[in-house]
Amino acid sequence: MNQQILLARRPQGAPVAEDFRLVETPIPDPGPGDVLVQHRFISLDPYQRGRMDDVKSYSAPVAIGGVMECGAVGQVAASSDARFREGDWVLGGFGWQSYSVRPAKSLIAIDPDEAPPSTALGVLGMPGLTAWVGLEDIGQPKAGEMLVVSAASGAVGQVAGQLGKIRGAKVVGIAGGAEKCAFVKDTLGFDAAIDHRGNLDAQLDAACPDGIDVYWENVGGAVQAAVFPRFRDFGRMVMCGMISQYNTAPGAAAAGAPPGPNLGPVVRKRLRIQGFIVSDTGWPRYGQFRKEMLGHIKAGRIKWREDVAHGLANAPAAFMGMLEGQNFGKQLVALD
Amino acid sequence: MNQQILLARRPQGAPVAEDFRLVETPIPDPGPGDVLVQHRFISLDPYQRGRMDDVKSYSAPVAIGGVMECGAVGQVAASSDARFREGDWVLGGFGWQSYSVRPAKSLIAIDPDEAPPSTALGVLGMPGLTAWVGLEDIGQPKAGEMLVVSAASGAVGQVAGQLGKIRGAKVVGIAGGAEKCAFVKDTLGFDAAIDHRGNLDAQLDAACPDGIDVYWENVGGAVQAAVFPRFRDFGRMVMCGMISQYNTAPGAAAAGAPPGPNLGPVVRKRLRIQGFIVSDTGWPRYGQFRKEMLGHIKAGRIKWREDVAHGLANAPAAFMGMLEGQNFGKQLVALD
Repeated sequence: MNQQILLARRPQGAPVAEDFRLVETPIPDPGPGDVLVQHRFISLDPYQRGRMDDVKSYSAPVAIGGVMECGAVGQVAASSDARFREGDWVLGGFGWQSYSVRPAKSLIAIDPDEAPPSTALGVLGMPGLTAWVGLEDIGQPKAGEMLVVSAASGAVGQVAGQLGKIRGAKVVGIAGGAEKCAFVKDTLGFDAAIDHRGNLDAQLDAACPDGIDVYWENVGGAVQAAVFPRFRDFGRMVMCGMISQYNTAPGAAAAGAPPGPNLGPVVRKRLRIQGFIVSDTGWPRYGQFRKEMLGHIKAGRIKWREDVAHGLANAPAAFMGMLEGQNFGKQLVALD
Repeated sequence: MNQQILLARRPQGAPVAEDFRLVETPIPDPGPGDVLVQHRFISLDPYQRGRMDDVKSYSAPVAIGGVMECGAVGQVAASSDARFREGDWVLGGFGWQSYSVRPAKSLIAIDPDEAPPSTALGVLGMPGLTAWVGLEDIGQPKAGEMLVVSAASGAVGQVAGQLGKIRGAKVVGIAGGAEKCAFVKDTLGFDAAIDHRGNLDAQLDAACPDGIDVYWENVGGAVQAAVFPRFRDFGRMVMCGMISQYNTAPGAAAAGAPPGPNLGPVVRKRLRIQGFIVSDTGWPRYGQFRKEMLGHIKAGRIKWREDVAHGLANAPAAFMGMLEGQNFGKQLVALD
């Protein structure tokens, strides 16, 4: 049987268990040209919270009763196409479920000898590409500049900061708690780590005494308010996400959202605040990204951490925890 | 004698008459290589309000007791340099005074046969170049896109909107009062004009039913708050100024400044909010700008309006009025 997690109803604020429903349905038969994929890892990412709301956005919401959307990696369980054999690893937008049937031509093959397959959902996948695109196109930190990354131990933040170091920037990560801060500084090699549960102003004063050139925004809220006044002239604010408010209102821009910074300094300091979505321009450049990243990984310049929950039934709890910052690294669910 | 207007003290909020002081000093003698310039028009611009505050900004403040800064055009009254003869028109940063002595090599010659000399302070000067640079580098309105310009009848706004029309954009101007709105629509040829003293939401709904691609920001405050939620995907916000708050606190970014928009939509809609100062990159491109603008003017595609006060003693009142939106067109003071 195919286990699936459906969107049972639209959350009011933070999702609760009752917003999801676990069902079992027959595993579909692959038709001509189709492949049956047994999922091994599904990817939980903050953007999926947006898909639960019925608001106008860059992507249509999941329908009530529909399977929750996500990227996933799996192994071919049955194939009627010559391109794939049983056991082959593949990547696709398979959703929160244990099996998918998809046209062979829609699947992306993964070489498990090059890197562990789960990395296709993290450091070598959408989150890693997001970090790479945002730095290439918007942040563009130069050698000696100060880059501050929020949610620095998360899937995107850990890559953004390390890529900043590779570019020669000074990199400060903001994370929640001593354990994550130690990881950011000691394992990822950032120049400093700041605990957002402590005094942000004092810690930013100490870590960035000359101000901030590039801010990678993953969280919004109090962190954004503390960072914004510290921009130097010609600063860039890479608007990747604002997870702190995803649960506070149906959609980030709803009427109840808290105000943002006064924009006067944008003129005076000639700041650029720019948002992006990786799917707009990222995938045609995936080959270049992957080649660079594999080089960095082999040379030991890029490290990563995954936070793996086990069993599809635990996906909602892991997802709800991630939205509250309880994950430590890229959040996955292993379908053992 | 040389009439000068000095900064008597730093304003607390809106400037008042006592913040300025009119003095008479001897006209200096030009030394070798110098030129004595008798000013004909001085330019009053919103940025000069920032120069009155002692806050960190892109340019140093005017010292207490110093001559108020501005661009001006004048005629050579005496020259000891072969490059200039008596009566020649020149442009420079001469300040709020009736005479200047400057090195000949620092002066920019103006051809009065090409356009009236006052235009070197407006449509063909810094404000016009500001409009051109901001559209070229940040706004980049494409044919069919919706461009909204605030302070649309002002020195920068009138040029920004007309250049938008030339690029094929639909252009809506926001101005204060029926007379300015009629000018924006009927004389400048914008597609629509909105009176910010009326219901902004209803007027924006009517004029921009499909949303806004480019917003030229001159004012901030309530106008910004009404425009921001109407951005379409990939919208650009050209941050030229926020005059509504220049008088509310010492410096636009001071602690008392009102909050800005929640930045969640910047991610979801992939917006770009970017500030600029014309002096950063504008002047090396002045030749290209001037050539294009003269072509537009000769072809009747660019019109302009000046608001001319008379006599240096009236400069403070004209300046204070401009900060409250009482000017109608590019604010000048003629030194008759």
